Amino acid sequence: MSEPVSSPAVDDAEAARHRAKMEKRKAVQDREVAEKTIEKGLLIVHTGPGKGKSTAAFGLALRMLGRGGRVGVVQFIKGAWQTGEQEAFAAFGDRVVWHTMGEGFTWETQDLARDRAAAARAFAKVRELMADETIALLVLDELNIALRYEYLDLGEVVSTLAARRPGLHVVVTGRNAKPELVAAADLVTEMGLVKHHFSAGVKAQAGIEF
Amino acid sequence: MSEPVSSPAVDDAEAARHRAKMEKRKAVQDREVAEKTIEKGLLIVHTGPGKGKSTAAFGLALRMLGRGGRVGVVQFIKGAWQTGEQEAFAAFGDRVVWHTMGEGFTWETQDLARDRAAAARAFAKVRELMADETIALLVLDELNIALRYEYLDLGEVVSTLAARRPGLHVVVTGRNAKPELVAAADLVTEMGLVKHHFSAGVKAQAGIEF
Repeated sequence: MSEPVSSPAVDDAEAARHRAKMEKRKAVQDREVAEKTIEKGLLIVHTGPGKGKSTAAFGLALRMLGRGGRVGVVQFIKGAWQTGEQEAFAAFGDRVVWHTMGEGFTWETQDLARDRAAAARAFAKVRELMADETIALLVLDELNIALRYEYLDLGEVVSTLAARRPGLHVVVTGRNAKPELVAAADLVTEMGLVKHHFSAGVKAQAGIEF
Repeated sequence: MSEPVSSPAVDDAEAARHRAKMEKRKAVQDREVAEKTIEKGLLIVHTGPGKGKSTAAFGLALRMLGRGGRVGVVQFIKGAWQTGEQEAFAAFGDRVVWHTMGEGFTWETQDLARDRAAAARAFAKVRELMADETIALLVLDELNIALRYEYLDLGEVVSTLAARRPGLHVVVTGRNAKPELVAAADLVTEMGLVKHHFSAGVKAQAGIEF
């Protein structure tokens, strides 16, 4: 085996400074934790041009499964393409309810009426899963795309999600989240694109992109 | 069951405009896909102040598991705290190799020498897993924190990761990624904090934060 990485030695003064700083930090941290008392089902939005929006949603689903909860997934846009996580969720049997309602990327279907009908069917499925009290977390994958292209009525979608039952967490993914959805959300993360391997000619690879 | 969301009707002219636009988009998309031919193990960095860095890394791990790959995880900072995903990965048996090498948050240990020693042990484990050819993806959770606090030698870490075997994907998470690591990476996503429920007094909840 190779050598472990070297880690610089610590002198007493440095150790004491570090301890003092961390004691202060711990006090702040403990106070902040104590101030937070509310429990609620969150409306979470993952948006932005960077990679990781759906991936983080499925990571949350995994965490919820680890905590014993059931998870529902409705995919609004992607069709057969993205299957790595779907395969993996099979290990959890009926604790993951998965519905791929989209018919593929909008530039593949090229059929607006069909895309709209598919989105309406997908949202009907969302209402059904929202009413299912065995489900703790709902992933609405690429719903932002369906909203952006006006496949669905924005006001109707936002008010439906805002009226979720108290314990239900909902994660919405996709670029260009609508401001009305952001306003209704509890947690919004913008995935920023700093650097992408596609720009360097690297192709989509199994286990990474799909 | 409740009514499906209304979706506006499409007239012929609108449908034709949409089709033409999407045909053009598909041509661009197909050309871009055709231009990307390189396959390589990626060095991926999830950084930034927003939520989702580790979550997206575990989502990638899940995707890789769905594609039949084995996954290694080394946690540099967090100790016993974050266990939802760890529990869930148990469903995949020895296809996930998990090492929690950190001794908890830096403000909990308050011991610089101990934190540095733990980081050095963790990186020795990373070298071991990098050499294991059965592993397709390696998650180095919160390595950025260990680098930020100079628990490890930055140059040594970056050159070790840059020298990974060709097929190995490595994901590094944590705030404040070092520019040298970003320079060496293929894919860098900055998770931006748009809105966080902690600010509204909501506490950390099982299945969401841990």
